[in-house]
Amino acid sequence: MFKRETPKAAATAHRILEAALDRFRSHSFDSTSMRDIAKAAGVATGAAYYYYESKEALVMAFYQAASNEMQPLIQAALNQQGSFEDRLRRLIEAKLNYFEPNRGVLRALLRSGIDPKHPLSPFSDETKPIRDTDLRWFEKLIETSDLTVPADLRPELPGLLWMFQMGVIYLWVTDESPGQRRTRLVLELGAKAVTGLLRISNLPFTGSLRRQALDLIQAVKGVE
Amino acid sequence: MFKRETPKAAATAHRILEAALDRFRSHSFDSTSMRDIAKAAGVATGAAYYYYESKEALVMAFYQAASNEMQPLIQAALNQQGSFEDRLRRLIEAKLNYFEPNRGVLRALLRSGIDPKHPLSPFSDETKPIRDTDLRWFEKLIETSDLTVPADLRPELPGLLWMFQMGVIYLWVTDESPGQRRTRLVLELGAKAVTGLLRISNLPFTGSLRRQALDLIQAVKGVE
Repeated sequence: MFKRETPKAAATAHRILEAALDRFRSHSFDSTSMRDIAKAAGVATGAAYYYYESKEALVMAFYQAASNEMQPLIQAALNQQGSFEDRLRRLIEAKLNYFEPNRGVLRALLRSGIDPKHPLSPFSDETKPIRDTDLRWFEKLIETSDLTVPADLRPELPGLLWMFQMGVIYLWVTDESPGQRRTRLVLELGAKAVTGLLRISNLPFTGSLRRQALDLIQAVKGVE
Repeated sequence: MFKRETPKAAATAHRILEAALDRFRSHSFDSTSMRDIAKAAGVATGAAYYYYESKEALVMAFYQAASNEMQPLIQAALNQQGSFEDRLRRLIEAKLNYFEPNRGVLRALLRSGIDPKHPLSPFSDETKPIRDTDLRWFEKLIETSDLTVPADLRPELPGLLWMFQMGVIYLWVTDESPGQRRTRLVLELGAKAVTGLLRISNLPFTGSLRRQALDLIQAVKGVE
């Protein structure tokens, strides 16, 4: 995302990014300008633009760095022994733990997130590479579990688990209970309920309901 | 919401509200000031403040007027004969049809809606009276249907149907397919899937999954 020609340039870019995150957290994303960010980082506005073309580019750099840094943490979470339910919970916990110091930044970005046309939304075209990286972890979780998933549900499952994760992250970002205890409970019970649903999804009497759900998913995705 | 002392005052208040909605639609909620609204309505800024204390108050007046005007339309939708599934779909269709001319206004308010602490969010304390009116219609839909709902699920059901409605409205507001055809299909298939789930929720083999889902709902609501 930025020009790392020298260690000094990398350090400056990093300082600008940290200043931006601080400012989004303490004020808001909308009310923050590149000038504010440059000032907080102690660089000229032109210098800030040299490293990042816009405040949106700063957020994308934050997302990308987070995605990169989380890879080994997610791998470690999935390497642990356990049931599908345990590993699903741990995969999502690894993300909450990583984002903990920047929960306020995600809070400030919530308003952009809801609009799928906003470049910084987790649902946008611009964030698709990060979403795809995420989806591959859910893919791997399914592959390495003992869960028997019906063939028609299988291709949709990584996306459904990703949506479950996004729901948990949304709750967590807006959760005002001490230590976000409420979200931790939702994650625990949610992982249990999702796993329970998957376990019955293979039984004959749930077939017609499963096909209805799959039709619904295709409609939500806009596939005709 | 506004001071209707005379027909003339009511007409002015109405003109200001219409100008505000136009402006939210064509620009955005965030970038619109009371001055912009007053100017578009052809009144002095002080006069606009005489009728509405803020632009948030204007949106609340819009929400409240919409809720009032929709009551007979929802009643008419529920008065029609049909299955639970049909009447659930019609109840929500009545709202989409009513909001059709102001879909762009709801689009402009999306960013506020995602934040449960924002006074204009459908999840906020400030909009609770409107939400409660909505919930009573779902209550009535359940009461007047032939559906047998398990006793433990019954108190949660109006809220769950309300959440389904909000999901449909969110899709509809962001739906770029011609005539929002995609959302119409999602509503049709969604009403079918929700009804299918409710029909099996009473069967013995779904008991433990239903109790898991109810625990999850309590956790999401923050009830301990």
